[in-house]
Amino acid sequence: MSADPHPFSYAIIGAGALGGLYGGMLANRGAEVHFLIHSGIEQVRRDGWRVESVLGDFQIPGEQLHLHADPSTMPPCDVTIVAIKTTQNHLLPELLAGPTRGDGVVLCLQNGLHSEADSAAVVGHDRVLGGCCFLCSNKVGPGQIRHLDYGRIVMGEFTPADAPPAGITPRLQQITDHLRGCGIDAHATGDLWMARWRKLLWNIPFNGLSVVLGASTKELIEDPAAEAMAAALMVEVHQAAEACGRRLPDDAIAATLQHTRQMVPYDSSMRLDYLAEREMELSAIFAAPLAAAAARSLNLPRVEMLHRQLEFLQRLPMQ
Amino acid sequence: MSADPHPFSYAIIGAGALGGLYGGMLANRGAEVHFLIHSGIEQVRRDGWRVESVLGDFQIPGEQLHLHADPSTMPPCDVTIVAIKTTQNHLLPELLAGPTRGDGVVLCLQNGLHSEADSAAVVGHDRVLGGCCFLCSNKVGPGQIRHLDYGRIVMGEFTPADAPPAGITPRLQQITDHLRGCGIDAHATGDLWMARWRKLLWNIPFNGLSVVLGASTKELIEDPAAEAMAAALMVEVHQAAEACGRRLPDDAIAATLQHTRQMVPYDSSMRLDYLAEREMELSAIFAAPLAAAAARSLNLPRVEMLHRQLEFLQRLPMQ
Repeated sequence: MSADPHPFSYAIIGAGALGGLYGGMLANRGAEVHFLIHSGIEQVRRDGWRVESVLGDFQIPGEQLHLHADPSTMPPCDVTIVAIKTTQNHLLPELLAGPTRGDGVVLCLQNGLHSEADSAAVVGHDRVLGGCCFLCSNKVGPGQIRHLDYGRIVMGEFTPADAPPAGITPRLQQITDHLRGCGIDAHATGDLWMARWRKLLWNIPFNGLSVVLGASTKELIEDPAAEAMAAALMVEVHQAAEACGRRLPDDAIAATLQHTRQMVPYDSSMRLDYLAEREMELSAIFAAPLAAAAARSLNLPRVEMLHRQLEFLQRLPMQ
Repeated sequence: MSADPHPFSYAIIGAGALGGLYGGMLANRGAEVHFLIHSGIEQVRRDGWRVESVLGDFQIPGEQLHLHADPSTMPPCDVTIVAIKTTQNHLLPELLAGPTRGDGVVLCLQNGLHSEADSAAVVGHDRVLGGCCFLCSNKVGPGQIRHLDYGRIVMGEFTPADAPPAGITPRLQQITDHLRGCGIDAHATGDLWMARWRKLLWNIPFNGLSVVLGASTKELIEDPAAEAMAAALMVEVHQAAEACGRRLPDDAIAATLQHTRQMVPYDSSMRLDYLAEREMELSAIFAAPLAAAAARSLNLPRVEMLHRQLEFLQRLPMQ
């Protein structure tokens, strides 16, 4: 690995709560970061990048930022971070063309299972890494991020579903090290699918139930019926992971429930999407795991029912 | 059977949407009907009993009504109709003492499974009949009923869960005949449990989902995800009925869905209770069938999840 403190340049596709925080942290430590700005670029040029964070506030003047309104003007970058919602993945061919036209990699920081496949369809499997983020962060305006809690990324090489785990490759280790050097709590994993299932263990019950029951994670975890439901949903996710060759630890469910009990009260990303009348990430978080289980002849009745409830509410929100 | 056009006297315990309609129809045809009036008795004395009905409007002057503010003043009646919500069943010992102190029977017109057991605990199994009502009706004020659609009662002798069906007894036939003679669409069944399960086939999915998803039956049946969920819930109810010795017809699910498609748009009784911040009939409609299935080692994952969602919403309604 180079002694260069900044061996990689970055493109941030999706400078929202997540991409805006991590991109901002990289730029704040001096890395070359190109932000694709969907709206409000003039305001960001004028006011700069402003992050209020539990890790410390910072601000980067607009003139020091690399801002792009159009992905085709972005230079080829070593690492293109995909941080848009999976519901926007149909835009990836257009969004990735500019920054990935060199030989850089894509780091897909999206929710759900197999979400990297859409990036891989654009740049090829061998150029895609993925990461699961554990983060409470909001975008409060163009270039304005409020980071409330957590921030961990567990990242690994993307592999097809039936391939063996890729292990920790040198490039994965180097990118992880660079992110850590810029203050990001990044961890390399040799088995991205395991990390994805581990995160779904939380996302499926708590994203789903928070929308259907109109409740915060705190309200859910403190109610015995909702906690029992969350646990029953987790059992199904655990079974699906095992059917797909990823046996989660036996205590994963108890640990996830316990962790949720200790979380700050918090609206899940899916509930925020629902309340803002944005499309929910049902395909990545529900349909993909259900399809993976079904391909192994495993039925997940509770997860399936929750998915259908969300599909109904997506079409016909509660008044 | 007597040639007397009115062989039976009635007590109406719960003169709401249901008891108020049927009691009113009986009284309007000249039967002796004693109403227990929980609130607004002075207004009913003054304004009488007023029914707007798809079957024809009618009004009974207050001076022709037998109104009671206290169940202990009610005379012994031949048939005491229990039409309170099952959530009020803890009041039955007090409510039934007066009108059942002779040798009359109780006709329990309540939702759910095994709801008659609470009446049977007061007067004994051998004095209880039950009926499933299919009715769209609202109470709009004291003694004021608006009957929108349907009105059928399927009634039978109450038997313990493991007893064989009682068949159609002479008293069941006579009471059914009297109700029919008063214009009520009553039908005798030799197997009340079968009728109860048949009704749960509709009540469990459509009462439950209408509350959780904040939707009318029409909105549910017209949405493919919600219809698929309703059908999957019905499959579980069908299995539970069979495990309890009541095999519903093979086409019962398809017929119930088709019937729901043809219904007038309508808020289920559970949704009305939820919106009015009344206690929902979760025990009778969900917990009792789940317990009956569990006693036969049958797990109903979707019904159980819907029940838990409703328990959560009962404690913490959506804002």
